[in-house]
Amino acid sequence: MQSQTIQRKILRTICPDEKGLIAQITSICFSHHLNIVQNNEYVDHRSGRFFMRTELEGLFDDERLLADLDRVLPSGTQRELNQAGRRRIVVLVTKEAHCLGDLLMKSAYGGLDVDIAAVIGNHDTLRILVERFDIPFHLVSHEGFSREEHDARMAEQIDRYSPDYVVLAKYMRVLTPTFVRHYPNQLINIHHSFLPAFIGAKPYHQAYERGVKIIGATAHYVNDDLDEGPIISQDVINVDHTYTAEDMMRAGRDVEKNVLSRALYRVLAQRVFVYGNRTIIL
Amino acid sequence: MQSQTIQRKILRTICPDEKGLIAQITSICFSHHLNIVQNNEYVDHRSGRFFMRTELEGLFDDERLLADLDRVLPSGTQRELNQAGRRRIVVLVTKEAHCLGDLLMKSAYGGLDVDIAAVIGNHDTLRILVERFDIPFHLVSHEGFSREEHDARMAEQIDRYSPDYVVLAKYMRVLTPTFVRHYPNQLINIHHSFLPAFIGAKPYHQAYERGVKIIGATAHYVNDDLDEGPIISQDVINVDHTYTAEDMMRAGRDVEKNVLSRALYRVLAQRVFVYGNRTIIL
Amino acid sequence: MQSQTIQRKILRTICPDEKGLIAQITSICFSHHLNIVQNNEYVDHRSGRFFMRTELEGLFDDERLLADLDRVLPSGTQRELNQAGRRRIVVLVTKEAHCLGDLLMKSAYGGLDVDIAAVIGNHDTLRILVERFDIPFHLVSHEGFSREEHDARMAEQIDRYSPDYVVLAKYMRVLTPTFVRHYPNQLINIHHSFLPAFIGAKPYHQAYERGVKIIGATAHYVNDDLDEGPIISQDVINVDHTYTAEDMMRAGRDVEKNVLSRALYRVLAQRVFVYGNRTIIL
Amino acid sequence: MQSQTIQRKILRTICPDEKGLIAQITSICFSHHLNIVQNNEYVDHRSGRFFMRTELEGLFDDERLLADLDRVLPSGTQRELNQAGRRRIVVLVTKEAHCLGDLLMKSAYGGLDVDIAAVIGNHDTLRILVERFDIPFHLVSHEGFSREEHDARMAEQIDRYSPDYVVLAKYMRVLTPTFVRHYPNQLINIHHSFLPAFIGAKPYHQAYERGVKIIGATAHYVNDDLDEGPIISQDVINVDHTYTAEDMMRAGRDVEKNVLSRALYRVLAQRVFVYGNRTIIL
Repeated sequence: MQSQTIQRKILRTICPDEKGLIAQITSICFSHHLNIVQNNEYVDHRSGRFFMRTELEGLFDDERLLADLDRVLPSGTQRELNQAGRRRIVVLVTKEAHCLGDLLMKSAYGGLDVDIAAVIGNHDTLRILVERFDIPFHLVSHEGFSREEHDARMAEQIDRYSPDYVVLAKYMRVLTPTFVRHYPNQLINIHHSFLPAFIGAKPYHQAYERGVKIIGATAHYVNDDLDEGPIISQDVINVDHTYTAEDMMRAGRDVEKNVLSRALYRVLAQRVFVYGNRTIIL
Repeated sequence: MQSQTIQRKILRTICPDEKGLIAQITSICFSHHLNIVQNNEYVDHRSGRFFMRTELEGLFDDERLLADLDRVLPSGTQRELNQAGRRRIVVLVTKEAHCLGDLLMKSAYGGLDVDIAAVIGNHDTLRILVERFDIPFHLVSHEGFSREEHDARMAEQIDRYSPDYVVLAKYMRVLTPTFVRHYPNQLINIHHSFLPAFIGAKPYHQAYERGVKIIGATAHYVNDDLDEGPIISQDVINVDHTYTAEDMMRAGRDVEKNVLSRALYRVLAQRVFVYGNRTIIL
Repeated sequence: MQSQTIQRKILRTICPDEKGLIAQITSICFSHHLNIVQNNEYVDHRSGRFFMRTELEGLFDDERLLADLDRVLPSGTQRELNQAGRRRIVVLVTKEAHCLGDLLMKSAYGGLDVDIAAVIGNHDTLRILVERFDIPFHLVSHEGFSREEHDARMAEQIDRYSPDYVVLAKYMRVLTPTFVRHYPNQLINIHHSFLPAFIGAKPYHQAYERGVKIIGATAHYVNDDLDEGPIISQDVINVDHTYTAEDMMRAGRDVEKNVLSRALYRVLAQRVFVYGNRTIIL
Repeated sequence: MQSQTIQRKILRTICPDEKGLIAQITSICFSHHLNIVQNNEYVDHRSGRFFMRTELEGLFDDERLLADLDRVLPSGTQRELNQAGRRRIVVLVTKEAHCLGDLLMKSAYGGLDVDIAAVIGNHDTLRILVERFDIPFHLVSHEGFSREEHDARMAEQIDRYSPDYVVLAKYMRVLTPTFVRHYPNQLINIHHSFLPAFIGAKPYHQAYERGVKIIGATAHYVNDDLDEGPIISQDVINVDHTYTAEDMMRAGRDVEKNVLSRALYRVLAQRVFVYGNRTIIL
């Protein structure tokens, strides 16, 4: 049944590439009297994969629209139709405030279409900051628990809020495969180096030792391997010989928070498609 | 009549926005058994204008394809169908070698799909460099001529080569309106500042005097007003208090040549659409 | 009289350039058994001006040190010896939260050696945010007051806190010359454009209209002329034809806050020297 | 004996840090009636090492100046006094033209104070380009030779020109330790990735596979280990999912040549100090 108010929705399509896909998809939208506000598509010629993001406006009959699409789209097509607009996240933290602070500010004062349902920390350090913004903070300490137990307790706490995404805002714990698989394409991490340089712990110290002239940060989806998921956004700044590892850390904080929030901005707008270990951003 | 060899062509469409345009255009391409290698489009909601670049591959019957498109596209549509691939330019210079040198290198050794038909200078300084690359150099001195006369002689020399574009690679002369109108959307200039900062002469000296911490360069189409045409590409570099105007000039040269060649790369790929004083790059 | 605890101080010297200045100044520091932690100097050859920042550690007898320096330094020398470390600011705001939020976060959680003594707004919009961080907020409305009267009331409120610097964190009011002169080299403003492009109001709208491909922000000292003081820091980001003026505004906010906090970091470290309309950053 | 014409020289000092070093060194220069055009120094507090670059102008008595310095400087001091100005290099190449072309242009038309004494290739591909600039090109083919033999033949050819530096402008061969040790701090390489990411062969393909959003280039001194020497300069550009490995290669070429020429600019100005695996650039 068709809704009675004008809505904006995002249709995301991934399928094997075929001649005429754009024509077929957009014709169907057209036949539903939907206006295409924005359409972006990409064909990965190496894998023969077609990706399309279609921003639609009008009166939607979701069921019929998807059924009409399924009739013409090749088998093996993944398609989803989601409401545009505000999303809901849970943020995981340890002790560092800068990425969290930026998310709190942007959620409250504009910049990210996001509600922070809760913040969960394995330390209590950031409770006061979170509570200043009237958002629930939960301490889920890892002390006395195995990694598996701790992750299970984290997941339990997270799932109470049914978030669209879980943002690791300098959450300094390695995640178990069980935890990661529980949130497919929902976990977004900020790593404090320009990946794949300086994987693992203490990247600024590694960068200092190597004598690099540029440092960076990387926001990525988390998959099974540490610091190995599909990259969403990266940025860098110049450093020189006068920077100690601590100076790099301080300067890097601004890059980290910028990169994380830029990545999240695109994810929230449903612009990011994951394919293998790469992202397509439409 | 349909050609018998597989070709790659670019269809460029500008028209008033309407529901279903993408579907209609791509359906027609589809009905011609053409493969869409890449499709990019943009709607400027403020002006209600639709822009689309469609890269097509297959056996083309240009006349019939355009006729089919004209049947469905709104009145006032501008559309063109061009062969993809190598273009032909004439380069105008004065005395500075860096932008010219980069174009010569990229034309000869890869990086730009371009043939430099000729280089024309109002000074003879760069003749040797050009002739080293076995390209004709013409001196068209401005001495003893009015601006109008000189531009007319330039145009005469340029037009012998029927170039697709005329590239002003640090050609340090103000152009007459007659000259500019003779090459609509064909004149590409590199200005040695981050426009609209420091319009006019000696931008590095202006930048030095103002004490800026960043300098830049701007590649743009030339229209009637000096340094005022639609911007295609810009880039910047950091400077500090130790830079004299001369240091800025030296450091700026790399930015200038990079920006010019990036702009040209996009123009040659027929990705740049001009609308009013802005460019849409698809 | 010499202090009895090891301290760190910054000696800043500006004087006409002469042969042997570095030797003379550092020799005197040496004779006081002070360790030079860091020394940076710059000679502006155009103006014949010498600038030096010397970071010293040891037991200081300020009076004797300055007297010894005055004996050897040329007449017309400005020199100051200040404690290194934490400074005190008052922040002026209107309605936008992002720069203020970043300063509040960095003051509370590290990143800037600064105490925010108070925030003063000409609107009440940001009171809640400021009070969340347990910092006094004062509303000094401009309604019903002439510009001169309002500035006088602002100054009165500011001066109660005797700040080292006054930071205009998107304070959207033109300042009177009287106000500006009251805080020589103490007023730091963030302007939301890459100066000198787009001076004045609504720079993002100007940038949109001009079709630029890069936007930026500028932190500068305020002098008598609007947006004309010595530039401390600038940065930019890329934009394209898909950005509306509102998109530029949103993306620009991160640049604005980064640039302001980088400028402030250098000012707080007493690295910034003003000479004419330029800054020397040592 | 003192020279009779005003000269400009660079004094470079590396020694264990001690109180009063700047005062002592500059005092001695002062006592020689030398003008300090520019002085930059840095203390690495971790290693307790002092680095200073002093640009001097005047009538030099080198022997006496160095003797005076040796009297006051700590044991273990390395100091050198070199003429400022133009240096002499030999360039090694394989088949790619872009870095070489930029060096040829800047040597001939300004931008680098450098004479290219000769270009040596292990392929003949670039002979024509080099000879266009009236510079000798030597083919030293590696075919039929062991790595050791080939490097010995290269060194023999290089040494005929007694260059100050040997620049590897996309010379795609791994060097033997013997060769590397023969040119201590004289070998400058451009690596086509943002080191330490993507060490080794085909970095653009590695970058493509990893799905990075930024690619870069690194200029560094060559020491025994492949791609492991002290970094002089790095730069990056943004890429996205539309870039194939070949697109990255093309876009990366501009970064490579810029980074190499920026590194060389600093090396030629004798601003680069090597300490362990890091560079200090004064």
